Amino acid sequence: MKAIVYDGTLRIADMPKPVPASGEALIRVSMAGICSTDIEIMKGYLGFQGIIGHEFTGIIENTAGNVPEMSGKRVVGEINCGCGICGLCRMGLEKHCPRRTTLGILRRQGALAEYTTLPAANLHEIPGNLSDEQAVFTEPLAAAFEILEQVTITRDQRVLVLGDGKLGTLCALTLKLTGAQILLAGKHAEKLAVAARQGISALFMKDLPQDSTFDVVVEATGNPQGINIASQFTRPRGTIVLKSTVADNIPIDLAPIVINEITVVGSRCGPFKPALQALSDGSIDVKPLIAAVFPARDAEEAFRAAGKKESLKILIDFRRS
Amino acid sequence: MKAIVYDGTLRIADMPKPVPASGEALIRVSMAGICSTDIEIMKGYLGFQGIIGHEFTGIIENTAGNVPEMSGKRVVGEINCGCGICGLCRMGLEKHCPRRTTLGILRRQGALAEYTTLPAANLHEIPGNLSDEQAVFTEPLAAAFEILEQVTITRDQRVLVLGDGKLGTLCALTLKLTGAQILLAGKHAEKLAVAARQGISALFMKDLPQDSTFDVVVEATGNPQGINIASQFTRPRGTIVLKSTVADNIPIDLAPIVINEITVVGSRCGPFKPALQALSDGSIDVKPLIAAVFPARDAEEAFRAAGKKESLKILIDFRRS
Repeated sequence: MKAIVYDGTLRIADMPKPVPASGEALIRVSMAGICSTDIEIMKGYLGFQGIIGHEFTGIIENTAGNVPEMSGKRVVGEINCGCGICGLCRMGLEKHCPRRTTLGILRRQGALAEYTTLPAANLHEIPGNLSDEQAVFTEPLAAAFEILEQVTITRDQRVLVLGDGKLGTLCALTLKLTGAQILLAGKHAEKLAVAARQGISALFMKDLPQDSTFDVVVEATGNPQGINIASQFTRPRGTIVLKSTVADNIPIDLAPIVINEITVVGSRCGPFKPALQALSDGSIDVKPLIAAVFPARDAEEAFRAAGKKESLKILIDFRRS
Repeated sequence: MKAIVYDGTLRIADMPKPVPASGEALIRVSMAGICSTDIEIMKGYLGFQGIIGHEFTGIIENTAGNVPEMSGKRVVGEINCGCGICGLCRMGLEKHCPRRTTLGILRRQGALAEYTTLPAANLHEIPGNLSDEQAVFTEPLAAAFEILEQVTITRDQRVLVLGDGKLGTLCALTLKLTGAQILLAGKHAEKLAVAARQGISALFMKDLPQDSTFDVVVEATGNPQGINIASQFTRPRGTIVLKSTVADNIPIDLAPIVINEITVVGSRCGPFKPALQALSDGSIDVKPLIAAVFPARDAEEAFRAAGKKESLKILIDFRRS
């Protein structure tokens, strides 16, 4: 099968069609998305090599072992696969299992391929009213919903989202559902305009008043310096949510965090159910975030487009070979 | 009056006796402590110059303006003085007031002197059963109690305190009151022995099993690298409490904090009442933490002793000139 492989360089490769293990499903991929994490992997993040990609929609072709009949269902999939028996897995925290595999990120071949496999328990059927182009946003949107699992945000709070990229905009759209006052700050006029058209107050980072502070600041710049900017704009006893996963170690000034008693919350993958619900009931519209859809044969060009700082979501259509 | 001044170098200086502003008390200092923050100030932390010191006991000599008669009372004092009118002050968060002064740290002459001044509202009378040598620990012990204001610690949790210095040991003694299992890790055999004699499980940092993780890790090493060590020993979804205030920016790897969804809580000054209570009822014994008491005339020698890595608490007795 055709697959997008990273092994020091990125290329389209012919790889063996995967065989599902017991409890897993074989999925024929329809649509896949390129995430900033994929770009970070190409800079050395986590040292992953193999088929990359973890945002996908697809059709279940078959399953292995004792799982309910699911063939033909159109699904999205949670990307972390725990051992199922450790303390963290038993607490429902499979995504933190020390022996986990993660689709296209950690010890598990990814989804930028004609076929992929995942445990059947990780799969969610896509509501009929959603296109594949919409449903492929479930995984990154779930990461935005993770913030609401970790931090209580109330209507009277002021929230700053740093970063006008895909994740920043999804975070802003998600947090807006709480009724809180959301401000998105970024560096790219076109992307700020995309957020503004969706009713988000958006401005250039350089235009943020230097003495303004927020109850909650979401760091989604993808820039390791982001936390230093975030701590500057967080009120005493406020909260910074760290969403960027980056490959670098950079000098950080911890003094404002200690002096202002700021809480910093690391935040990763999130719950699929509320994300699918918000897509399906129309409360979050992701279509304006799609920059382009490439056929699979043009995957290398798709990655070049996704690597540009200004890029919104690049999708790869595996139905078009 | 005699005072310990830092203005690029540390020296004993003759300074004018301070005059209390309206609402303030003039306090004749009895005993004062040297804090690691004082040592950091001498490395440039916050750029403070003037009379340093913020840990003291003393006798109120007089007050100015419309405050209750307090002359002759033996007191300790909270070190942050807010404007009293901003939103943070009205929420009781004077210590986060953007216009605050802080005793011997920020825009306010300190307590390493024969006399100091503070708002009368900042002062707490010392229970009669406490010596000055014990009561002078109220301020640093309150900083340890601040952790309990910010983080819920339950009996079934495992807590690691990194750092066997004064603050680390006070944190361990305080958190032990919750009934949780406390482990103190440090680098100095003598200081670990002091903690062990008080019933704290203590071991060398290098002997911490590399794969052990804790629900809560308190970073009190005073070393800017401390957070990188702390994140290595924090379980997924666990909490790091940052107690060290340091002058340096150092490279920090944020990836484990995001990937493991760790919460980092900056923690500073704390409540005096529970600290005085714990000292007074004997639930925390600080006497083993006293390394030496110097007369005021030997303050420079006292600072040299306090600057050594192995040093426990150095006190300066202003009753002995």
